Amino acid sequence: MGSFKGHILPGSFFLIAGLWWSGKFSLWYATRRNKSAGAGRLATRAMQRRMEILEGAVVLAFSVIGILAEQFVSNGPRFHLYDRAEQQWEQLMIWQHSTMYLFFALSGATTLTVHMTDVAPLALDRLILSIAFFNEGFLFLHHLHGREMLDVHLHQLLLYAIFAGALTALLEVFHRGNVLLELLRATMCILQGSWFWQIGFVLYSPSEVKWDLKDHNNVMFITMCYCWHLACALITVSVLYCTVCCVVRSKLRRMPPMEMGLLKPRERDGESEDEVL
Amino acid sequence: MGSFKGHILPGSFFLIAGLWWSGKFSLWYATRRNKSAGAGRLATRAMQRRMEILEGAVVLAFSVIGILAEQFVSNGPRFHLYDRAEQQWEQLMIWQHSTMYLFFALSGATTLTVHMTDVAPLALDRLILSIAFFNEGFLFLHHLHGREMLDVHLHQLLLYAIFAGALTALLEVFHRGNVLLELLRATMCILQGSWFWQIGFVLYSPSEVKWDLKDHNNVMFITMCYCWHLACALITVSVLYCTVCCVVRSKLRRMPPMEMGLLKPRERDGESEDEVL
Amino acid sequence: MGSFKGHILPGSFFLIAGLWWSGKFSLWYATRRNKSAGAGRLATRAMQRRMEILEGAVVLAFSVIGILAEQFVSNGPRFHLYDRAEQQWEQLMIWQHSTMYLFFALSGATTLTVHMTDVAPLALDRLILSIAFFNEGFLFLHHLHGREMLDVHLHQLLLYAIFAGALTALLEVFHRGNVLLELLRATMCILQGSWFWQIGFVLYSPSEVKWDLKDHNNVMFITMCYCWHLACALITVSVLYCTVCCVVRSKLRRMPPMEMGLLKPRERDGESEDEVL
Amino acid sequence: MGSFKGHILPGSFFLIAGLWWSGKFSLWYATRRNKSAGAGRLATRAMQRRMEILEGAVVLAFSVIGILAEQFVSNGPRFHLYDRAEQQWEQLMIWQHSTMYLFFALSGATTLTVHMTDVAPLALDRLILSIAFFNEGFLFLHHLHGREMLDVHLHQLLLYAIFAGALTALLEVFHRGNVLLELLRATMCILQGSWFWQIGFVLYSPSEVKWDLKDHNNVMFITMCYCWHLACALITVSVLYCTVCCVVRSKLRRMPPMEMGLLKPRERDGESEDEVL
Repeated sequence: MGSFKGHILPGSFFLIAGLWWSGKFSLWYATRRNKSAGAGRLATRAMQRRMEILEGAVVLAFSVIGILAEQFVSNGPRFHLYDRAEQQWEQLMIWQHSTMYLFFALSGATTLTVHMTDVAPLALDRLILSIAFFNEGFLFLHHLHGREMLDVHLHQLLLYAIFAGALTALLEVFHRGNVLLELLRATMCILQGSWFWQIGFVLYSPSEVKWDLKDHNNVMFITMCYCWHLACALITVSVLYCTVCCVVRSKLRRMPPMEMGLLKPRERDGESEDEVL
Repeated sequence: MGSFKGHILPGSFFLIAGLWWSGKFSLWYATRRNKSAGAGRLATRAMQRRMEILEGAVVLAFSVIGILAEQFVSNGPRFHLYDRAEQQWEQLMIWQHSTMYLFFALSGATTLTVHMTDVAPLALDRLILSIAFFNEGFLFLHHLHGREMLDVHLHQLLLYAIFAGALTALLEVFHRGNVLLELLRATMCILQGSWFWQIGFVLYSPSEVKWDLKDHNNVMFITMCYCWHLACALITVSVLYCTVCCVVRSKLRRMPPMEMGLLKPRERDGESEDEVL
Repeated sequence: MGSFKGHILPGSFFLIAGLWWSGKFSLWYATRRNKSAGAGRLATRAMQRRMEILEGAVVLAFSVIGILAEQFVSNGPRFHLYDRAEQQWEQLMIWQHSTMYLFFALSGATTLTVHMTDVAPLALDRLILSIAFFNEGFLFLHHLHGREMLDVHLHQLLLYAIFAGALTALLEVFHRGNVLLELLRATMCILQGSWFWQIGFVLYSPSEVKWDLKDHNNVMFITMCYCWHLACALITVSVLYCTVCCVVRSKLRRMPPMEMGLLKPRERDGESEDEVL
Repeated sequence: MGSFKGHILPGSFFLIAGLWWSGKFSLWYATRRNKSAGAGRLATRAMQRRMEILEGAVVLAFSVIGILAEQFVSNGPRFHLYDRAEQQWEQLMIWQHSTMYLFFALSGATTLTVHMTDVAPLALDRLILSIAFFNEGFLFLHHLHGREMLDVHLHQLLLYAIFAGALTALLEVFHRGNVLLELLRATMCILQGSWFWQIGFVLYSPSEVKWDLKDHNNVMFITMCYCWHLACALITVSVLYCTVCCVVRSKLRRMPPMEMGLLKPRERDGESEDEVL
């Protein structure tokens, strides 16, 4: 049903998304803290908005491409749902993946709408992102019927990362701009990505040696392995955060002192979109 | 035990309630945002109060009618609880439905009391609404004993929508006037309504073809179908929201500029009931 | 193991506690709302403090009496824990009840300390009350091993009321003085009390007719019955609330207008303990 | 698999951590409340910072020592993970313990970073502490496969204390400086420590008499015993709290009245790090 590539690919996307988020939110936090030193010029409100719009467009594009690829590549269902001849559903697995992509596409479209127009309330992007994660976890939860012990366990561990990410995004609706929540979400996204890789390497290992899916020792090792992935994700995010902080500081030191008279009042008020909320 | 009509009817009520809520809360949010442009005149505090009273009265009336219909139409128990002759309970199913209606009647009566008098604290209407939803979910949860796999699964999925709605209403007690929560509640209500329809069409399908209640592929398809209902509910609410926003803006543009001198100070202070809280 | 009296007695205590709380919190809310009309004289801060101290003393006294009664009346274990002769524990049931009373005694002692001295932070009384409820629920949860279906179900339903009360008290730690939470806690306490009565009448019915503990129809009826208890508790609390509000208003109307000069500044500042927090 | 010493040792560490926390947070709260009486001189901001740094360093040191001890003492795996000769994992138990220590080491390192530099947001130390506790509970949760009833029950009860501690630490991220949460965390840590001792004495009792791990009466007694541990932990923390309060007050009375002119303005603003947040 699954395949090596089918786990490596989404894993890579989540890894990249997590790294992008940790970089983005670190940069915004660093500029917010060093505002008095003129850091506002490094990441102005207009630039933040452009980054958000870019993010939304990329998420939307990749989700649509994902749906089309799943549907048309290599014997996909081509948007046929029910096979009347054989009286059965057409490739439900692929339809499930399409449904997951659909919600991420909605999330991307929402981000675009929220940041390109001023129609919708700002926190809507986090709410829809949270719903997209919940939806992904919900589909995985009902995805595990009749599999081997280790296979079920691997996907259950994945669910922790997904639901933790969804809950963090939901909390952000009420505590927008809290850098800890934003970095925690990035961590959970990286964890999810690297765990997708792990699942790919365990279940569809490209090497000769296969894992024994019924050995309880393997279950115990995998549980521990999950904790190491979490530790690595935490360390990756903190290294990225420190790097961004150092770069921002060194840039600020090299910048000429700002001439206050040149600063327009509008720019000083709203450097961060979140604070306007 | 159930019937096609017995799922279509409550489903329609929840659908209408969800659409009404998304319209109502979109209108209030749009007027609140455009207050400086004189939008307060479109939805004054008195009008808001009248809408709430109307809503409470309709909910109360329909709940009472529902109880009476269940009890008296077509061999209902007519408020007899125990059949002494046969030593058994009289039609517990119908009594359970009456109990659900009873809590929605309480919710309607509370809304009436809160908005017609100033005795009770404003957030009480959301608390009782939340309790009514929790009660509905609680009764459904203990309603599933000894049914077929797909039947149980269909009703479990319904429970997600019910409890999500209950939790959202509970959160509104503490974050009153948050438009995202209000629209999320409307979405969950629409999802619940459309899912009632889906249950009716799957279990008591009016067509010839019957669903196989034991096929695991059907369970997988239904899970996915639930996600599509959710996506449709989200899109419906956002389309409604955008329509209301556009209508409010175009009306404001056509309105003559307000003469500030004619505005009484009392009206300017309290245009929204929620903000007075 | 249990007895009719063993359920009626704690039920009565919880009923009285619930009624007392709904009266107390309604009175405080009514005086807070009508402060400008001089309602502060009806329930001054000193009086509130005296009511709290009285409550704490009563809870402490009854808990200690409860422990002593359980231990010494009718073949109690008299504080012996282990029977060395027969190599078994002495009457664990009674020790469990004593443990529950112990935590309510702690809660009463905390209330006394918090309101008689100013050593501890004010919200501590709610935290310990919440822990006492959680502890009660925790012991009941591990109390159900090897019983009949209806017996287990009756006690599980009791757990909902207990944990809902515990959660409400926990929320009050962070939202102190929120009248909705206070009345919700009172409602849950009344529900718990009346449900104890219901359990007593079902399991140890004083009449001739016994309930069939294995009939699934009885389980369904009891579930519904629980909802009716909840509805009755809600209505009782709201009737009490309205009565208190009316009495406060009519008293205020009959009072002579306050001479502002006679009011000492200290009294005007701190009429409610909660607001000082 | 386990041993007497293997439960007494971590238990002692958690006991000491809990006592240290209750002392530390009581002291800070007492000085904050008596600030007007000059208590700021008893626990200045610099001293608080030094205490935090000390705490972080001790946690980090003991965690690293713990990892090394587990890996090298008495036939440890010496950082070998897989035994290629026998085609099996090397002592997974010890690796699991190392993983737990690893997260506490991360927590210690975070505390050091947060309080020695000003790079990271202040609440990060609580977040990582919470993650360390969650990780410990997570590993214990998947640690219980195929054990005796009483053994499983003892460790499940331990999980309550661990997850309650983790949740409290998580709440502190959003309600930093709330003394009730801080003392609750200390209580949960003491409970965890004393329960580790209890597990050691029950499962690997140094006396001759062994517990019957299949007797349901023992399960019931252990459940009750857990409540007594909780009560003892609560009483210990409150006694410590009262002692610290009394000591602070008596010291303040003996201190000469502060000469206000000598107080630098900077010192008056930021006596507590948490308030700066």
